[in-house]
Amino acid sequence: MDIKQIKDPSFLKEMKPQELSQLAKEVRQFIIESVSHTGGHLSSNLGVVELTIALHYVFNAPEDKIFFDVGHQCYTHKILTGRAAEFSTLRKYKGISGFQKRKESVYDCFEAGHSSTSLSAALGMAVARDMNNGDYEIIPVIGDGALLSGMSFEALNQIGYEKRKMIIIFNDNKMSISGNVGALSKSFGRLRSSKGYTELKGDVKSYLRNHKYGEALIAGIHNFKDGIKNQVIDSGIFKEFNLEYYGPVDGHNINDLIRVLQTAKKEEGPCVIHIITTKGKGYKYAENDVTGKWHGVGPFNKNDGKMLSSTPKGYASGSEIVARKIEEMMITNEDIVAITPAMKQGSALEHVFAHYPERSFDCGIAEEHAMTFAAGLALGGKRPFLAIYSTFMQRAYDQLNHDICRMDLPVVLGIDRAGLVGADGETHHGVFDIGLMEPLPNMIIAQGKDAPEMRALLEYAFTQNHPFALRFARETVDMDPDENRKITSADWEYLVRNEKEDAIILSYGFDVKKIAETVKDNNLNYTVVNCRFLKPFDEKILDEVLASDAPVYIYECDMHKGGFGMNVLDYANSKGICKKIVLSGIPDKYVEQGSTMQLKEDMSLDLPAFFCRIEEDIK
Amino acid sequence: MDIKQIKDPSFLKEMKPQELSQLAKEVRQFIIESVSHTGGHLSSNLGVVELTIALHYVFNAPEDKIFFDVGHQCYTHKILTGRAAEFSTLRKYKGISGFQKRKESVYDCFEAGHSSTSLSAALGMAVARDMNNGDYEIIPVIGDGALLSGMSFEALNQIGYEKRKMIIIFNDNKMSISGNVGALSKSFGRLRSSKGYTELKGDVKSYLRNHKYGEALIAGIHNFKDGIKNQVIDSGIFKEFNLEYYGPVDGHNINDLIRVLQTAKKEEGPCVIHIITTKGKGYKYAENDVTGKWHGVGPFNKNDGKMLSSTPKGYASGSEIVARKIEEMMITNEDIVAITPAMKQGSALEHVFAHYPERSFDCGIAEEHAMTFAAGLALGGKRPFLAIYSTFMQRAYDQLNHDICRMDLPVVLGIDRAGLVGADGETHHGVFDIGLMEPLPNMIIAQGKDAPEMRALLEYAFTQNHPFALRFARETVDMDPDENRKITSADWEYLVRNEKEDAIILSYGFDVKKIAETVKDNNLNYTVVNCRFLKPFDEKILDEVLASDAPVYIYECDMHKGGFGMNVLDYANSKGICKKIVLSGIPDKYVEQGSTMQLKEDMSLDLPAFFCRIEEDIK
Repeated sequence: MDIKQIKDPSFLKEMKPQELSQLAKEVRQFIIESVSHTGGHLSSNLGVVELTIALHYVFNAPEDKIFFDVGHQCYTHKILTGRAAEFSTLRKYKGISGFQKRKESVYDCFEAGHSSTSLSAALGMAVARDMNNGDYEIIPVIGDGALLSGMSFEALNQIGYEKRKMIIIFNDNKMSISGNVGALSKSFGRLRSSKGYTELKGDVKSYLRNHKYGEALIAGIHNFKDGIKNQVIDSGIFKEFNLEYYGPVDGHNINDLIRVLQTAKKEEGPCVIHIITTKGKGYKYAENDVTGKWHGVGPFNKNDGKMLSSTPKGYASGSEIVARKIEEMMITNEDIVAITPAMKQGSALEHVFAHYPERSFDCGIAEEHAMTFAAGLALGGKRPFLAIYSTFMQRAYDQLNHDICRMDLPVVLGIDRAGLVGADGETHHGVFDIGLMEPLPNMIIAQGKDAPEMRALLEYAFTQNHPFALRFARETVDMDPDENRKITSADWEYLVRNEKEDAIILSYGFDVKKIAETVKDNNLNYTVVNCRFLKPFDEKILDEVLASDAPVYIYECDMHKGGFGMNVLDYANSKGICKKIVLSGIPDKYVEQGSTMQLKEDMSLDLPAFFCRIEEDIK
Repeated sequence: MDIKQIKDPSFLKEMKPQELSQLAKEVRQFIIESVSHTGGHLSSNLGVVELTIALHYVFNAPEDKIFFDVGHQCYTHKILTGRAAEFSTLRKYKGISGFQKRKESVYDCFEAGHSSTSLSAALGMAVARDMNNGDYEIIPVIGDGALLSGMSFEALNQIGYEKRKMIIIFNDNKMSISGNVGALSKSFGRLRSSKGYTELKGDVKSYLRNHKYGEALIAGIHNFKDGIKNQVIDSGIFKEFNLEYYGPVDGHNINDLIRVLQTAKKEEGPCVIHIITTKGKGYKYAENDVTGKWHGVGPFNKNDGKMLSSTPKGYASGSEIVARKIEEMMITNEDIVAITPAMKQGSALEHVFAHYPERSFDCGIAEEHAMTFAAGLALGGKRPFLAIYSTFMQRAYDQLNHDICRMDLPVVLGIDRAGLVGADGETHHGVFDIGLMEPLPNMIIAQGKDAPEMRALLEYAFTQNHPFALRFARETVDMDPDENRKITSADWEYLVRNEKEDAIILSYGFDVKKIAETVKDNNLNYTVVNCRFLKPFDEKILDEVLASDAPVYIYECDMHKGGFGMNVLDYANSKGICKKIVLSGIPDKYVEQGSTMQLKEDMSLDLPAFFCRIEEDIK
């Protein structure tokens, strides 16, 4: 069928199982074809094609609330709800989102981007439904990685207590983004290998009542409480949360999926259906991927699996520059321990993990724990390095404040994906962290203008006995092997200094280097200061800047509120200085998806606009 | 013995069990006597007297790391480590802390105040120990309430995976602060009622090998995997986390405690000892308390259990004012749902829960879940009210940002204990929330100057279709039954307006009312503006203020950085206004414990100092 002609999922109801399987094949091909052009989340979407078809076959959206934790596995859902024709705009500026988006469709009843929020929201929706005497279904779909995050446990604890009707789809691909970690994955492994659902066929409950070993089991088991089911089907941790459990079910067998969903529909309380899926199913490169490189991809050649956009030779992402330096430092500094909350590949830590398995820890999607685990290491005399995306650091704000800054512990944070991130959009831009960290006592915050400076800052970080955050953007830059840069104090530097300056520009990160180059290339009479320490300030240079007659322009592409500029302004004000200080920064709204260049232009935060503004101002 | 003469725990090693029990009695009397004078955390401390004695008897602190989750149950630990003589200064300015404090004693190897951080820290310490080839023990003590928080699960997941040696003391008093909630409390209930440890006596493992039912069980049980132990002793959720489990043990029987601790010491990996304790043990008023009122207390008469400091007639805390208003609004607005993360008593919500059990939810110590649960309710068309302490809101920052503000959902937050809180000190001051919330798009932040204004703001909050935070301080104020106040827009108000103004004061909350009264009483030529909306600003009034020739003084007792003042300054700067604007606010450091008055004086943030400063400035 023509996938792009699908308007809504109602057509599914008339289809036979055989036809549904055929549809799954076509949807899968469509996703591979489409994502090979646009880039996007591939593996997780290929894993849930049959599951999503079965969900829309059995349930009636949008009355029934089907939604996906994180949301990056909702492509089939988008296709079945009439958005296939827009897939060429996926994750592009003004295009359709890679996540669920309420304004995009009535079929998107929930939004996310960060993991493990779906179960809490599901309980809220279920309580609201019951208060309204509604009788629709609530069906959150959550992966094994997301289920292992603390917030999911908090939700399960109340879900099992409240006993509101909901069907939790536990999408178990044994992987998270790049392989699951933790004790519970073993527990899940035990569940996976149990013969539970598939052996039972049909209605689990009635089968159990007639199970031939039933009476024998009752007689033989001490402390018999929860009936035969919990012994025949090992329901693992779900039993402890007082939840009905169905599974495991083959997530690529539409017949089995439909049968178990129809059975679960008859439950009166909450239940969990354990679905086993294969990440990347149906596309061999993604299916064989063990590192997670097919989790989120750019455009690729679908025939040979080759990624089309490659980093220019000699260039690397901020993550790679930092990870290589950490690896090098781990040789001589045996106290350094590397930590990631489930982002080993994203943070480019594969080599660190391979070379220092004893000193590398993947905590899973558990930012809170990862942060305080780092605190514990520091209390034990080690020098932890926690690589964490800016947007995910938001999850561990209290641990950074209460556990690390308050005890003034020497934990080094590598704040990855700082600033705008592009296609992932609203939920992922790393633009709030400066505002979060500036008010934290004892905190040092730095950001380098290029690779050598990032490395020098990292060396400096490990000489400090305080919490230290090194921010860096997603952008790839010249690796520049220069090893002579040293930073010995929290200082700023003049990149361009004009005696007769018309304006003074303060900025940080890769941007300040570009600004300095533009100023030099155009022979502008501007002074440019690299404010590589966002906290504390280099008061010597800042006092010089404030003492000058020239107006000050601050360029930043993080949230204006609480940002670097506001802190500079406050410093000037505290010194009783009233002079022209022009701030930039992201205005008080969430920034959508798109290329960072497009987004900056959209907010007049691109460098040409910045220079125009100065020129107009001072002429 | 003279409790105050104890220097360190070494004397315990020579004592006989009988003597240890006698010591427990004396310590308990000391705590009751002492806390009756100073106030403090009573119930939780009375529950762990024998446990703490047994821990210091069996282990060798400070080499062995004994530490307490949250930390408010560490009084016996403080007494045994030589701090009894200082108990008269407990929680007072410059006195000993109510929590563990590293600078206070080498026996305090960890600090907290917020719950559920101990297991993550313990794993960090264990990894550090193993890297150092140390052979000391790591013994975190965690309560059932704290264990149910998501962060603890994240830690258990990695602890069961890493298999580092540690002894987790699960202090189960069945209570959290005021009664446990959630499905897992049922699971714990099953564990409690099992005959596990007490029936087995002595070494659990060797006993099991010889258990008479052993063979029969092996034959009778399908899917037999984890040995007999898991069937004889139901180890509940701990089995899923791959942790050895010992329990339940009577937490008031020193012999049993010593025996199980000595057995656990022989384990090579991590284990959990489940200790059953009685909150408030040995003091009848606390022991019979089901609401949690003896959890944290002020001074009381130890003979009749009467609290000494009572609120003046007609006065009430911010929590009570808000809770009563919510209860009243729930009559007419059937969509309002009240939520607390384990602070029903602290947030004065008992009446709300009693009168609207169907619309009141205690989520347990699970701020992250509570916030997104509220988001789910809002998505379902309800009007959730989440009562949350400012300091604990820090735990749910990302959920407020990613789930509520980003989707622009109408959730009303009652931000309790905003500002300095006094005796709880560093970990509990609610001074960061303004800086956290100001940069969040769609957020409305308000704070009332008195009870009628708080009620009017709350009514206004429920007319808004945006996230709305109403901050209020711990302080008790006049209930003032005036019901005529109405707020119909996000406006500020002049409390005092002078035509010929020498200065303009901007402030918010109870402080601004006191400031206005002082100005009136002293006939000062100052204008005073009640900035009851911290976001958005009332631009009409602010523009008037900025247009005046008079200097502006902003009074706030929250963090200076990121605070209200900095946002006003930024607004003025964005309008190109350079005028004298003097900010106050808490400087860039953590604020210790003490009376709020003392702490303010210490930082020159008391009102007399504020007025002095203005007078000196303008003369």
